[in-house]
Amino acid sequence: MKFKKIVTIGISESSLDANYWKTIDSLAEKRISLPKDSPEVKKQLEDADCILAGFGVKIDKNIIDISHELKFIGMLGTGYGNIDADHARTKNIAVTNVPGYAAEAVAELVFGMILENIRELEKAKKKAREGNYSDSGYKSSEIRGKVFGIFGLGRIGSRAAEIASGFGADVRYWSRNRKKELEAKGITYEDADALIPKCDFLSLHFSQTKDTENFLNEKRMQKIKNGAIVINTAPMELVNIDALEKRLKEDNVTFILDHSDEMKEDDLKRLSKYKNCIIYPPIGYITKEARIAKQDIFVKNIENFLKGSPTNRVN
Amino acid sequence: MKFKKIVTIGISESSLDANYWKTIDSLAEKRISLPKDSPEVKKQLEDADCILAGFGVKIDKNIIDISHELKFIGMLGTGYGNIDADHARTKNIAVTNVPGYAAEAVAELVFGMILENIRELEKAKKKAREGNYSDSGYKSSEIRGKVFGIFGLGRIGSRAAEIASGFGADVRYWSRNRKKELEAKGITYEDADALIPKCDFLSLHFSQTKDTENFLNEKRMQKIKNGAIVINTAPMELVNIDALEKRLKEDNVTFILDHSDEMKEDDLKRLSKYKNCIIYPPIGYITKEARIAKQDIFVKNIENFLKGSPTNRVN
Repeated sequence: MKFKKIVTIGISESSLDANYWKTIDSLAEKRISLPKDSPEVKKQLEDADCILAGFGVKIDKNIIDISHELKFIGMLGTGYGNIDADHARTKNIAVTNVPGYAAEAVAELVFGMILENIRELEKAKKKAREGNYSDSGYKSSEIRGKVFGIFGLGRIGSRAAEIASGFGADVRYWSRNRKKELEAKGITYEDADALIPKCDFLSLHFSQTKDTENFLNEKRMQKIKNGAIVINTAPMELVNIDALEKRLKEDNVTFILDHSDEMKEDDLKRLSKYKNCIIYPPIGYITKEARIAKQDIFVKNIENFLKGSPTNRVN
Repeated sequence: MKFKKIVTIGISESSLDANYWKTIDSLAEKRISLPKDSPEVKKQLEDADCILAGFGVKIDKNIIDISHELKFIGMLGTGYGNIDADHARTKNIAVTNVPGYAAEAVAELVFGMILENIRELEKAKKKAREGNYSDSGYKSSEIRGKVFGIFGLGRIGSRAAEIASGFGADVRYWSRNRKKELEAKGITYEDADALIPKCDFLSLHFSQTKDTENFLNEKRMQKIKNGAIVINTAPMELVNIDALEKRLKEDNVTFILDHSDEMKEDDLKRLSKYKNCIIYPPIGYITKEARIAKQDIFVKNIENFLKGSPTNRVN
């Protein structure tokens, strides 16, 4: 089976490698590629049976209702909050997403950012380039033996927990659901409020929901141990920025984040003033392995739907 | 039991924390501290029964023969090549060293240096500070799934192997002796020459002996896979510098080292010209945990000798 007409919205040619475009084109009689917010969307969708949507593209009720042929909406990414999946469901239109493709990339970055910080690697490289090979003046420490708290034990959190175990840390977690497989590996469950004050490293791995927004609120922020390192590769909405700024000012915690596109410009400016707030561009998801996995899952979702055994359907 | 007179040579006051000096002083009626190459050494050693030696201090036959009371030489460090331990043995003088105190520190640094490199963290931090939060232009990759070759499975190599396993790498090793405990954890043994061409990451962990000097000779250096990352936290004597320079010039491998004090100034200059050779100061051993462990083992060696149950005796 093939689609009659695929319309891609907001997926640039360079977002997918040529071989994936080739596969996609083999799955439809016709493909039209439109940029986000193109005035042509309405016209092109009229006879489309498949929409492929890039990150941040809004597919609301109105757009879904344009085409009476529509059967499938494929999201190139994990978050599908911009797609009205519930409405699509009422019309038996499948919505699929691409989950977990960057779990490893993000989890590995957590340890890259930690070690970069606790071993002062930027300073070390700089000094070596200047010809200064002295080993004095470094306040380095180790991961082994430290309490490593993981908040949110989903795909990324689970991998972070396993890597931290390899480093010999005392790995503990709090998550909405208990994960017995990881507990069997020595990763211990603890109540969030009991765990926070014990953490030497505190890594946030919740997805953003109403329950997790503002998770590090003022009360919890104040309970973080002096000298702790907090790592946030999840959305900054989990963190109360005023409370964070207060702790940063006290200069007794280090906060490391990889800035997400959605972070408010003002918050970013406020935080970048503090030396103990280390900000990275959003590079957590950027590895060549993650890029391949993302494309693989995205295209397989389309193929599997056509074969009658849909994968990663979210509605 | 106590020593009558301890002479320390080449151990500065700041090398040990005050509490350790206090313990040492409680173990002798008298302590004299001399800098390395002090003209007073001969005179002060005449009635000494204990020498404590700092890194790089030469304790040869002539020095050992000065005192007829000498019973113990304690080395503050792992390498004891500067101490004539064999001659000391003929006079029933115990020589002790401090092994393994920095195994974790060095093993963790290996992964810090790797992730710093494959995630381009220095560039990322710099760009973020300049207000450039773009995620494009990064050629990042992951550790998971890659062939991670460990050469030398001693204390440091074993920990590096376990950490690499936590990252989900395909960890293989070559070492003089098989290590069945680690093989039981999925770390596989392979002949060095068969393993070298397969490695995506190749980490050297031999101590320097006649057998390991020049281990990465011209032939082996040429067999390293294009795109591989070689990490050397061990002495650079393991590596043929001419052969390395040739590969660096071809620009198809990355070599990361933490420069040791003994590295020749000329070699350092030659290598620092290459962008794909990342040189760090000798920070592998520098963590606060390693510093404490080093002092602990050093002082316990003295205490245990006095109690009649010597530890870490090397002769």
